[in-house]
Amino acid sequence: MSLLVVGTVAFDAIETPFGKTDKIVGGAASYISLSASYFTKEIGIVSVVGDDFDENFKSLLTSKGIDLGGLQVKKGEKSFFWKGKYHTDLNSRDTLDTQLNVLEKFDPVVPENFKNAEFLMLGNLVPAIQQKVITQMNKRPKLLVLDTMNFWLDIALEELKKTIAMVDVLTINDAEARQLSGEYSLVKAAQKILEMGPKVLIIKKGEHGALLFNKEQVFFAPALPLEEVFDPTGAGDTFAGGFIGYLAQTKDISFENMKRAIIYGSAMASFCVEKFGTQKIENLTQEEVDERIQEFVDLVQFDIALV
Amino acid sequence: MSLLVVGTVAFDAIETPFGKTDKIVGGAASYISLSASYFTKEIGIVSVVGDDFDENFKSLLTSKGIDLGGLQVKKGEKSFFWKGKYHTDLNSRDTLDTQLNVLEKFDPVVPENFKNAEFLMLGNLVPAIQQKVITQMNKRPKLLVLDTMNFWLDIALEELKKTIAMVDVLTINDAEARQLSGEYSLVKAAQKILEMGPKVLIIKKGEHGALLFNKEQVFFAPALPLEEVFDPTGAGDTFAGGFIGYLAQTKDISFENMKRAIIYGSAMASFCVEKFGTQKIENLTQEEVDERIQEFVDLVQFDIALV
Repeated sequence: MSLLVVGTVAFDAIETPFGKTDKIVGGAASYISLSASYFTKEIGIVSVVGDDFDENFKSLLTSKGIDLGGLQVKKGEKSFFWKGKYHTDLNSRDTLDTQLNVLEKFDPVVPENFKNAEFLMLGNLVPAIQQKVITQMNKRPKLLVLDTMNFWLDIALEELKKTIAMVDVLTINDAEARQLSGEYSLVKAAQKILEMGPKVLIIKKGEHGALLFNKEQVFFAPALPLEEVFDPTGAGDTFAGGFIGYLAQTKDISFENMKRAIIYGSAMASFCVEKFGTQKIENLTQEEVDERIQEFVDLVQFDIALV
Repeated sequence: MSLLVVGTVAFDAIETPFGKTDKIVGGAASYISLSASYFTKEIGIVSVVGDDFDENFKSLLTSKGIDLGGLQVKKGEKSFFWKGKYHTDLNSRDTLDTQLNVLEKFDPVVPENFKNAEFLMLGNLVPAIQQKVITQMNKRPKLLVLDTMNFWLDIALEELKKTIAMVDVLTINDAEARQLSGEYSLVKAAQKILEMGPKVLIIKKGEHGALLFNKEQVFFAPALPLEEVFDPTGAGDTFAGGFIGYLAQTKDISFENMKRAIIYGSAMASFCVEKFGTQKIENLTQEEVDERIQEFVDLVQFDIALV
């Protein structure tokens, strides 16, 4: 097993200024594993759904080489459901409905053949559950990456800080970095957060790109300026999936390679927002991914020779 | 004459979350010309002040090789004055006071020895006055760059559109690009604005960097993530000054060279915000500028070899 992904597999209902969906498949682990599958084939998911979940989507994941041996299916129960509405600028949204359902009593069990995974991606989830997965591994993975959100900062800060202290890379957005650190400047925020345990911090700024920090260096990856952003749902998870997928493929966790990984993550996220839900990232070709990467190169590369 | 700069030379009083100033020197032409003076020495200013203006600052400009032969001094009148207060996030501000004073009846006169300037930078000012300067030139400069702001979009849109149609490069911020084009997507906004006349558009996004568009290409320059942003006043003008100063130095107006110029502009702006007013950009060394440029290279350069 190259990459173990933990997170929700769920249903979403989404409303954006451009349209709305009924229940469609979503969830952090869905986006992360789909995105990562363009880079590495040995992926396993640990998650939980009800028996109402979409069989076609499960088949799609399996066809991408994603092992669902760690996906618990709860008979007679319903999958996690989130309903949200985005504002005109797409940078903010209101949660209209959250039904925890199967997540309420979720007790993750890591299958034996997943316990030696080299890369562990902890998608957004209850911090205590994220910890339970880490402690079930046979040995410490080569790289542990944690994603979380403001909800856990608000209601489970101490538990979240414990989880943060256990990982190598933390990914959060700019508002969350400010909340977690108490610093407005993202440079100062990063310094404080890197004191909490992680060696690397990624601050996601949505349409304004992403920053990659370690204690000595900083790297910035822009978001691609797009003609249309249709639905931002899952963009952060797709970003994380491209990031860890590329690292799992190359098995190189140096800062230099993380720069490349963050560009791949940004490229995958730029696809995600072009259609509703997982639609756009279900069937990309290698050529499309390569072309998109080339657009990022063209977007930021310049040539200054300092004398 | 290499570069002619038109714009205000004025007094500001500034309040930020970190402190406040009494009257200090400011104005678009002050920031632009100071910033450009690190790249080219033949600079002239066309502007107006009252006899209350700061003689030491005029000496400073002259010592940088900036020709004040086009700076009218109105006896018994007062210089333009702006007072503003920034909000906590420094991205928005309230204007507390505006005293037009000498600007009210400003009739720009371009001195003979400025009329062959190769580069013309029209800093933020009444659009009709900007036009008056263009029409006084002996021949069309190699490059005309126009900066403006939402105020003129609100009260003098038709006149502003005429000015926009006369220039090669327009620089505005993201909100202004949306207002001018009626498009939320900056990519679509850029397409519409480039139909209005300019060959190149620069959209400034403050702490989120800047985008450079022509009809076929797009380039993104980040802002440097800083520990402290002290005072954003003049950052956009300093950016424009670095941009046109570098172009005037290199005399190369290709898109590739504009990429470099926008990085130099961003570097100069990153200095500007570190202290109140023009303080920080009055006395930089070549080493400081070069080091800052290297930080931009380190911030965004990555190495992906597509096969």
